[in-house]
Amino acid sequence: MKWLSGLPIRLVNRAYSPSNENMKKIAIIGSTGSIGRQALEVIGAHRDKLKVVALAAGKNSLDELAQQINVFAPDIVSVPNGQAAGDLRALLNNTKIKLDILVGEEGLEAVATHSESNLLLTAIVGFAGVKPTLAAIKKGKTIALANKETLVAAGSIIMSLVKEKGTKIIPVDSEHSAIHQCLSGYAISDIRHLWLTGSGGPFRTWNQKQIDNATVKDALQHPNWSMGKKITVDSATLMNKGLEIIEARWLFDFDPRKIKVVIQPQQILHSAVEFCDGSIIGQFGLPDMKLPIHYALFYPHRAEFADGPRLNLCELNSLTFETPDYDRFPCLKIAQEVAKEDSTAACVLNSANEIIVEAFLQERIRFKDIPVSLMRVLDKHNRVASPDLEDILEADLWARDEAAAILKAMV
Amino acid sequence: MKWLSGLPIRLVNRAYSPSNENMKKIAIIGSTGSIGRQALEVIGAHRDKLKVVALAAGKNSLDELAQQINVFAPDIVSVPNGQAAGDLRALLNNTKIKLDILVGEEGLEAVATHSESNLLLTAIVGFAGVKPTLAAIKKGKTIALANKETLVAAGSIIMSLVKEKGTKIIPVDSEHSAIHQCLSGYAISDIRHLWLTGSGGPFRTWNQKQIDNATVKDALQHPNWSMGKKITVDSATLMNKGLEIIEARWLFDFDPRKIKVVIQPQQILHSAVEFCDGSIIGQFGLPDMKLPIHYALFYPHRAEFADGPRLNLCELNSLTFETPDYDRFPCLKIAQEVAKEDSTAACVLNSANEIIVEAFLQERIRFKDIPVSLMRVLDKHNRVASPDLEDILEADLWARDEAAAILKAMV
Repeated sequence: MKWLSGLPIRLVNRAYSPSNENMKKIAIIGSTGSIGRQALEVIGAHRDKLKVVALAAGKNSLDELAQQINVFAPDIVSVPNGQAAGDLRALLNNTKIKLDILVGEEGLEAVATHSESNLLLTAIVGFAGVKPTLAAIKKGKTIALANKETLVAAGSIIMSLVKEKGTKIIPVDSEHSAIHQCLSGYAISDIRHLWLTGSGGPFRTWNQKQIDNATVKDALQHPNWSMGKKITVDSATLMNKGLEIIEARWLFDFDPRKIKVVIQPQQILHSAVEFCDGSIIGQFGLPDMKLPIHYALFYPHRAEFADGPRLNLCELNSLTFETPDYDRFPCLKIAQEVAKEDSTAACVLNSANEIIVEAFLQERIRFKDIPVSLMRVLDKHNRVASPDLEDILEADLWARDEAAAILKAMV
Repeated sequence: MKWLSGLPIRLVNRAYSPSNENMKKIAIIGSTGSIGRQALEVIGAHRDKLKVVALAAGKNSLDELAQQINVFAPDIVSVPNGQAAGDLRALLNNTKIKLDILVGEEGLEAVATHSESNLLLTAIVGFAGVKPTLAAIKKGKTIALANKETLVAAGSIIMSLVKEKGTKIIPVDSEHSAIHQCLSGYAISDIRHLWLTGSGGPFRTWNQKQIDNATVKDALQHPNWSMGKKITVDSATLMNKGLEIIEARWLFDFDPRKIKVVIQPQQILHSAVEFCDGSIIGQFGLPDMKLPIHYALFYPHRAEFADGPRLNLCELNSLTFETPDYDRFPCLKIAQEVAKEDSTAACVLNSANEIIVEAFLQERIRFKDIPVSLMRVLDKHNRVASPDLEDILEADLWARDEAAAILKAMV
């Protein structure tokens, strides 16, 4: 972050204060994760239009959070607990930063609902995104959603609250961003299919036996994207694409049976919409998460993306397309079936998957055990249809316990 | 046209009369050409929403025009002259059709401006489209434009009249239709580049020597589209893509230097727009002119396209992309240079090209003489900047005479 070297923080901050009213003020939960970092890079390159007002991060990245505070001077930050707050305060000791440091779930909610913000970027991973996202929507905040688990687990609740509050969700997932961009100016009723593209993951060309014996290291070799470990494993199982079907279902209020998946290994076509007249409109870009982040932060406007290379259609050479293979990637099929339900099953799928993937990352189970253990959890689950928040919180806890028990029995 | 066999015409026509007010009423000039025919097929499949009120056709297709009249029962038709009108009347003699048969330029204009129509489809080829299109715009008609020469020759005049009359032009050219679809909901000011795709034509993989010796038969072997002879030769020289740059410039009010061409041999991506943030939105479809015709006839709505196969992204296999080669296809470069001017040069380019391509089709010149003779005409032309209609009509006549003289000297 060279642009700030040597400048006192408050001075830099003051530099964009005068036009404060035209500024988009942004809160970020998960600021030290992959998406959070890239969002801050985008904001750093557009300090005349974008401003950070609140940040929340985990306890394992306090050094980085302190650095972010030094650079972006938010009003408030949140960390998981008092210990982390003390450590952060110590790290900030020799700067003149004045800010509120909050803790725990309340702190996270305070960041999500900060009165100064126009936009909340939900960049934390997993089910933990549900509550702060709901709190922000209740306050009428626009959500830049990078936490797909929120819609997977609680899509029906989230979207009816969005409707009630008259706010909106701008997707950050590259596939959903693509669909959002393609739908501009069109009615969803004119759409016959949503087409989600996927890279196919690191095991796209592997045979069944090779996949069965895949190691954690193998699963973390994603061909295109640099992401967190959990989502990278989800890309290897194609569970990620399955979760995206559920996300798209709620986000675009669309029949899940009409959401299709196509493997596009170069990940240049990020997704597409098919109209009733057969015309398909798709969005292309380099596989760079900064692009959908940029889109979400500036929406409904577009701004110059000066940073890094641009896609040149003349230099594409070849884009290839393949049908997904449900036999080698059963997680996609499992999720596609769950996507058709409006029940607690999607929450259970997501929460159990979090536990199971963690067990795989810890090398407690094999890659091929992932779909097997997922199916076992789902088979045992007593669905609640059209669930409310309490049903979902309960299903979440049940799924984690049940997954843990099933994994224990497997090892 | 099986759906009508055995039914008396007026009865069929009456069948859709009751909902006349919700009906889109369409006039077509050039109804017996490739686009006109396909438009009538689309209309025939949607007789509850689309109705033909006026038709104009050339003198060499009176049998077909009579058949179209029998099927669609327009109010008026126009043919080139009194002889053709007499022949047509004889052909219609044993039917009970009552309609006005008009002739000549006045007849063409009467069809274009028919008081009952909401939409004029300009499906005639060449410079002849300019006058009736202008007449229709003056009457506030929406134009479904399949005659690109109108915008190439008189873009500035046409578009300022469109603006003045508050009407609009919906492009039928597949590339411009694609861009029109991609721009939906967006401001042209957010666009950095328009990307026109081209198949590369039948000589895409031919070397210079092969192209120099190309025959008329070779040039008429278009890899993807079935079109008229003149436009097929324009596809072989890439002049068609050059004319499309000029068309796009006026249609979208866009800087011609920022309009790019990419060769996409499968012609599945029909064109695209690139935003300032690097995101590219493109439109895909099978190479079937009925799709852009369908879009233009139903715009701003979309309707089911039941007729024929649909594009399935999973079955695409591979899309390839190439940079156009200006050395082997000098006509593209010539047109790209002319596109930068707001002068009579574009009209001269277009009119001279019509004469020169006709000479090639008559085997009076070789394929490689096309760009050479075009350049000679352009070199001799005294440009008029920001031309009015008279300047353009004059430039058109001059270009045809000059091209004829240059061709005579060459043979």
